[in-house]
Amino acid sequence: MDEFALIRRYFATLTRARRGVRMGIGDDAAVLAPEPGCELVVTTDTLIAGRHFPHDTAAFDIGWKALAVNLSDLAAMGAEPRWFTLALTLPAADAPWLADFCAGLQTLADRFGIALVGGDTTRGALSLTVTAIGEVPAGAALRRSGARVGDSVCVTGTLGDAALALQQLGQGGARSGPLVERLDRPQPRVQAGCALRGIAHAAIDLSDGLAGDLRHILDASAVGACIQAQALPASPQLLGALPDLAARLACQAGGGDDYELCLCIAPDRVEAARRLIDVPLTVIGQITAGPDLRFVDASGATIDPARSAYRHFP
Amino acid sequence: MDEFALIRRYFATLTRARRGVRMGIGDDAAVLAPEPGCELVVTTDTLIAGRHFPHDTAAFDIGWKALAVNLSDLAAMGAEPRWFTLALTLPAADAPWLADFCAGLQTLADRFGIALVGGDTTRGALSLTVTAIGEVPAGAALRRSGARVGDSVCVTGTLGDAALALQQLGQGGARSGPLVERLDRPQPRVQAGCALRGIAHAAIDLSDGLAGDLRHILDASAVGACIQAQALPASPQLLGALPDLAARLACQAGGGDDYELCLCIAPDRVEAARRLIDVPLTVIGQITAGPDLRFVDASGATIDPARSAYRHFP
Repeated sequence: MDEFALIRRYFATLTRARRGVRMGIGDDAAVLAPEPGCELVVTTDTLIAGRHFPHDTAAFDIGWKALAVNLSDLAAMGAEPRWFTLALTLPAADAPWLADFCAGLQTLADRFGIALVGGDTTRGALSLTVTAIGEVPAGAALRRSGARVGDSVCVTGTLGDAALALQQLGQGGARSGPLVERLDRPQPRVQAGCALRGIAHAAIDLSDGLAGDLRHILDASAVGACIQAQALPASPQLLGALPDLAARLACQAGGGDDYELCLCIAPDRVEAARRLIDVPLTVIGQITAGPDLRFVDASGATIDPARSAYRHFP
Repeated sequence: MDEFALIRRYFATLTRARRGVRMGIGDDAAVLAPEPGCELVVTTDTLIAGRHFPHDTAAFDIGWKALAVNLSDLAAMGAEPRWFTLALTLPAADAPWLADFCAGLQTLADRFGIALVGGDTTRGALSLTVTAIGEVPAGAALRRSGARVGDSVCVTGTLGDAALALQQLGQGGARSGPLVERLDRPQPRVQAGCALRGIAHAAIDLSDGLAGDLRHILDASAVGACIQAQALPASPQLLGALPDLAARLACQAGGGDDYELCLCIAPDRVEAARRLIDVPLTVIGQITAGPDLRFVDASGATIDPARSAYRHFP
C-alpha cells in the first residue's frame, strides 16, 4: 500500500453513519439521500498554505479551518450542514500531521453533524478544497439580495480579533492566546443562520472584512448603509490593544477572517432574533436608500475603514 | 476590480439556466432543487499540472479534462450529471488562457447538461478541483460491490491509447493525433452508465488502469476474474504501434487515463446492454470464484500486465 492509500484509509475513518449517507467513501462517488421538501446549498472554498493561513499553523487548526470556512458559507444561507468532500494536496504523507489534521476536521464535523463522503489526495504544495452541502426547506435560503431600507444591520459575535492576530503574528507575536484562537479556529454561526431563516431579510458571512462583505449585500439588494463605527462589537483584547477608533475600525471592517454573520433584520424583529440564537447579536447601523456604504464616528463624521495601515495577510 | 474578480466574472458566464438551479454563482453558496425520488451522487477529483496532465497541455483541454474525469465517476455510478463546482488555483490571471480554459469546460458542460454553480479562485501553482453532483433514481446507483461469479467482464470503447500517448510524449513525440486526443479529451461514458442501471451488476471507471481498477470491483464484490489479454479492445493506432501482446497489455491494463467503463454483466444480458448504449461494448473475461485477478494469453498462459516497462506519467 503506498502512502497515499494510507491517507485514504485515514479519511475513511471520518465517514460516520449519518443521515442520508447511502454510500460514503469507497466507490466512484458517494450516494446521498436528500431530505424531501428541501433544497441543497453547495459551497466550495480553497485554503492555500501561506495565503489563507500562516505556514506554521497547527495541523489540527488547518483541518478545523478548512471545514469551518465552508460551514460559515452554509450558515450565511441558513442551511443545515449535511455532507462534505475534501480535496487535499500534500507535499508528503506525514502520519502525525495527518492524525492531527483529521482530529481537527473531525472535531468540527462531529459538532455540526456533517459527514465526509468523498475526496481526493494528491501530492503538491499544501492546499485544501472543501465542498460542503447543506439543506434548507425549499425557498427558505437566506440570500444577499433581500435587504430593505430601514433594516437594522446586525452582526454576530465580535469583529476584528483575527485581523489583529494576523497583524501581531506578522510582528513576531506569540502563536497563542484568544486572538490567535479566533484566527485559527473560526466558529461558524450555523445555529444563528438556521434560526434566522424567515426573519433576516439578507445575510452574508464575514470572511473578507465587513466593509467588503457588506458591500455585496448592498449591491445585491440595491441599497446603501450607514454603520456606526463605535457600535462594532469588539472583544476586550481588541479594545485593549487598539483603543483608537480608527485603528480598531481598520481591523473590524477592513480585516478578514471573522466568520461572523452580517444580517439585515427589520428593527422590530431584532429582539426576537436575539432570543432565537446562541451568540450575541449587535445592531451596527441601518440600511439606507442610496448606494453608499458610510462608516461614521460618534459625532456623525465619516470615517474610512481603509485609511489605517492594516495589511491583509500575507 | 482585481484580476481575480475578473476571473470570477468569466466563470459567471458559465452558469446557465439549468434544471434545478435556484441560485447559481453570486451568493455565499448555490441553491439547488434535487429531483423528487432521486438520490445524489457526489464526486471530487483534483488535477495538478505536471502530475495529472503534462505542463504543455492546452488550456481548452485542461478545462475539458478537469470536468471529464468527474463526469466519468458519475457515469460509473449510473448518475445523470446536474451541477458542479470548480476550485481553480492559478499562478496568474492570463485572459487568453482563461478564455480557452472556459471554452473547454463549457463545451463539455453543455454536452452533458451540467451547470457550474460555484467555485473559488486562488493564486498558486496550477491545479483544479471539480466537485460534480449527479442524480440517480433512489436505490439505482451502480456500485463496485455487485459482481457475481460467471458475470461477463465488459469494457466500453478501447483501452490503452492515453497510456501510449503519454509514453510517446515522454519520448518527444508530437502533441497531436488521435492518441494524444484520447489523453487530453477523455469522453465520459455517461450515456452508457445511465443506460446500464438495472443491467450491470457492478461498474467502475478506468482512470488508473484496468488491472488496478478492476481489482477494486473484485475486492468490493469478494470475487476474482480471468481476463483474456487478446480480447482487450485496441484502437488501430495502438495495434500498429504495439503489435506485441505483452507490450500492448502494459498500456491497456497497466496504463491509466482511459476513462472507459468496466462493467460486470450477466452473459445473457450483454447483447441487450449493447443495444442500449452509444459506444462499443467488449467482453474481456469472466468473474471467477477466487480472489485472483488473472490475465491470460491466447494459449491460456498467465501474463503479467505489470511486467513490461510501461511507466506512468510523470
